[in-house]
Amino acid sequence: MALIVQKYGGTSVGTVERIQNVARRVKKARDAGNEVVVVVSAMSGETNRLIGLAGEISEHPDPRELDVLVTTGEQVTIALLAMALQEIGCDARSYTGAQVRILTDSAHGKARINDIDDTRVHADLKAGRVVVVAGFQGIDQNGNITTLGRGGSDTTAVAMAAALRADECQIFTDVDGVYTTDPRVEPKARKLDRITFEEMLEMASLGSKVLQIRSVEFAGKYNVPLRVLSSFEEEGEGTLITFEEDGVEAAKISGIAFNRDEAKLTIRGVPDEPGVAYKILGPIGDANIEVDMIVQNIANDGTTDFTFTVNRSECDKARGILQRTADELGAREVIADDHIVKISLVGVGMRSHAGIASQMFQTLSHEGINIQMISTSEIKISVVVDEKYLELGVRALHEAFGLEQE
Amino acid sequence: MALIVQKYGGTSVGTVERIQNVARRVKKARDAGNEVVVVVSAMSGETNRLIGLAGEISEHPDPRELDVLVTTGEQVTIALLAMALQEIGCDARSYTGAQVRILTDSAHGKARINDIDDTRVHADLKAGRVVVVAGFQGIDQNGNITTLGRGGSDTTAVAMAAALRADECQIFTDVDGVYTTDPRVEPKARKLDRITFEEMLEMASLGSKVLQIRSVEFAGKYNVPLRVLSSFEEEGEGTLITFEEDGVEAAKISGIAFNRDEAKLTIRGVPDEPGVAYKILGPIGDANIEVDMIVQNIANDGTTDFTFTVNRSECDKARGILQRTADELGAREVIADDHIVKISLVGVGMRSHAGIASQMFQTLSHEGINIQMISTSEIKISVVVDEKYLELGVRALHEAFGLEQE
Repeated sequence: MALIVQKYGGTSVGTVERIQNVARRVKKARDAGNEVVVVVSAMSGETNRLIGLAGEISEHPDPRELDVLVTTGEQVTIALLAMALQEIGCDARSYTGAQVRILTDSAHGKARINDIDDTRVHADLKAGRVVVVAGFQGIDQNGNITTLGRGGSDTTAVAMAAALRADECQIFTDVDGVYTTDPRVEPKARKLDRITFEEMLEMASLGSKVLQIRSVEFAGKYNVPLRVLSSFEEEGEGTLITFEEDGVEAAKISGIAFNRDEAKLTIRGVPDEPGVAYKILGPIGDANIEVDMIVQNIANDGTTDFTFTVNRSECDKARGILQRTADELGAREVIADDHIVKISLVGVGMRSHAGIASQMFQTLSHEGINIQMISTSEIKISVVVDEKYLELGVRALHEAFGLEQE
Repeated sequence: MALIVQKYGGTSVGTVERIQNVARRVKKARDAGNEVVVVVSAMSGETNRLIGLAGEISEHPDPRELDVLVTTGEQVTIALLAMALQEIGCDARSYTGAQVRILTDSAHGKARINDIDDTRVHADLKAGRVVVVAGFQGIDQNGNITTLGRGGSDTTAVAMAAALRADECQIFTDVDGVYTTDPRVEPKARKLDRITFEEMLEMASLGSKVLQIRSVEFAGKYNVPLRVLSSFEEEGEGTLITFEEDGVEAAKISGIAFNRDEAKLTIRGVPDEPGVAYKILGPIGDANIEVDMIVQNIANDGTTDFTFTVNRSECDKARGILQRTADELGAREVIADDHIVKISLVGVGMRSHAGIASQMFQTLSHEGINIQMISTSEIKISVVVDEKYLELGVRALHEAFGLEQE
């Protein structure tokens, strides 16, 4: 008998009918002999409705009261799901974050879990009940209601799985697993049976939206095996996110991630002096603009070109700041380009396979795709190219590294 | 500086604008130098919406889960009201029943309050904050969420006032106080400045819908001065429900209550034997039909006539049961009449003033109104008459006892 934590998001519990579907799914896992804890989000749309009500009252509602307000969303879902389970003969009991005693710090709206009391949950599981837990929410040591921030239900599921030493944490989403790349770009994209935590982290941070990056970090930290499954398809094993690299050793590359949301900024002809990087990026950071890739080239004339990427929505703001810096430093010019895309190869196999980077560059060159920036980590190579090459680049790399084959 | 508990019902907090109005009202009490605790219901319609969702899933939803579900209604209101108070510069903090620690028994849907922990509320009041408490809800000793049943927010307010030893518990409703009778029946009806608890209890039990009878009992038991006020009118002192009879001593009668929701059943010619009352009323009680007035007359022929009233909606059901009893007992006939009304005079002044009953009967007789049943208590006289005489009877009595005069 295994102990499984299942997590269903807002879309999966968006209507009464869907809640009843989830109940049948949970019962199936229970009937198969497992102990089951279910973590659910608010019905889709509900959190936004509540935030809308707060917005009618205050432009900047008190974070403590906002948490009191929005946590009612999951509380509605847990009650309805417990009822739906009982209705099909599956004994169940619901718990709010406060009732479980999911103890967090007091950072309303973005709290972190410090401790979980598993006493009552274990007692219910032992009594043969399914335990339904409200995701996204907890309580601080003074009894104030807190929330973990958007996507926090994934974190709740992983934290519950860690606290209960569950055999598996299953995240039900609207996709049926993790793919070698986005099937909308490359129809030959293949669902992965397994992927390592490190790879999943890179995929998530590079723009793959399957899982919240924080919950993946959390699962990695607490050794919780994580599985991504579709909440709408009954069959399928999804993708298991695992610590072991054995199953994926053979492949050099696990997947290709890409991010359309970046823009590139270049400041040219900056006098090459110590501290110039700080002088350029300091004002950007002060304006709360996050910088992703950074590249610096030294020219022969004693000046340097400095290029970095930011979120596309902040391109104009960053450009204005950069222009002021350029005037101060006596730089030659500032260039902004928001028609770029970042394409990344991800794979732990890179560690033991040489020549991945050159194979990547050769593939792109062969298609006539000019590489504008390059950035590498131990298990990832990212390049920035013109956005018109996105589909061509992804498909060429997908084929070159044989990702369509098992 | 007085400590005041204010309670606003679902209609008073039915929209964001109304919540903002309540906030202004609360701030006014705070600015006048009072410490204020506010108890609120769910926004009107919300509780029924939630019960509707449960109804889509189960015909008989689990009472524990139903309480988890419906208590989100008040939780939304407390957060929004706390935000609205903060927005107009009035420091405030919200508490669910569980957060206050309103400890109840485990009777989901109709729990009774056993204890209230006033530690956190007192600390907030001392810190200059308005405390906003979710009505209708509590928590049992195992941490399960409970509700007090419909109208339970009044009970929460009174219980909070008792626990905090508040100077006054103010119930804001859609009427501006307690009247000598229903102004829709007698336009000369006058708002009472004061009424005693005993009178209010009689008025409530006789069909006056101003307050939930349970909250009046509770306030009486715990010596909490209660005031009924309008949530829509800024001015006015409402009606104070008090223990002291001094202010009302002069008046013989405080008010006239009436109840249109009754029906009269008579079983005639029952052999007059010991235990006949039980034989007649036992089956009625077994069918969960509540009986109000009971009158028995003994005839000269060794038989008796037995008459009682029930809620009008249960008249047919009661008639069927009574007919079976009549057949068993060999009674002459069963008569049902659902065109009756009960009119009651209420007043603690009756105790020290003789002749009230005869003045009442004389007044009705003078108008040609036939009295079908009479029932009395220490501070109340009720008569049953044909419903066509309701307005005539109420107005005649209102004038005869000088109720329009201060």
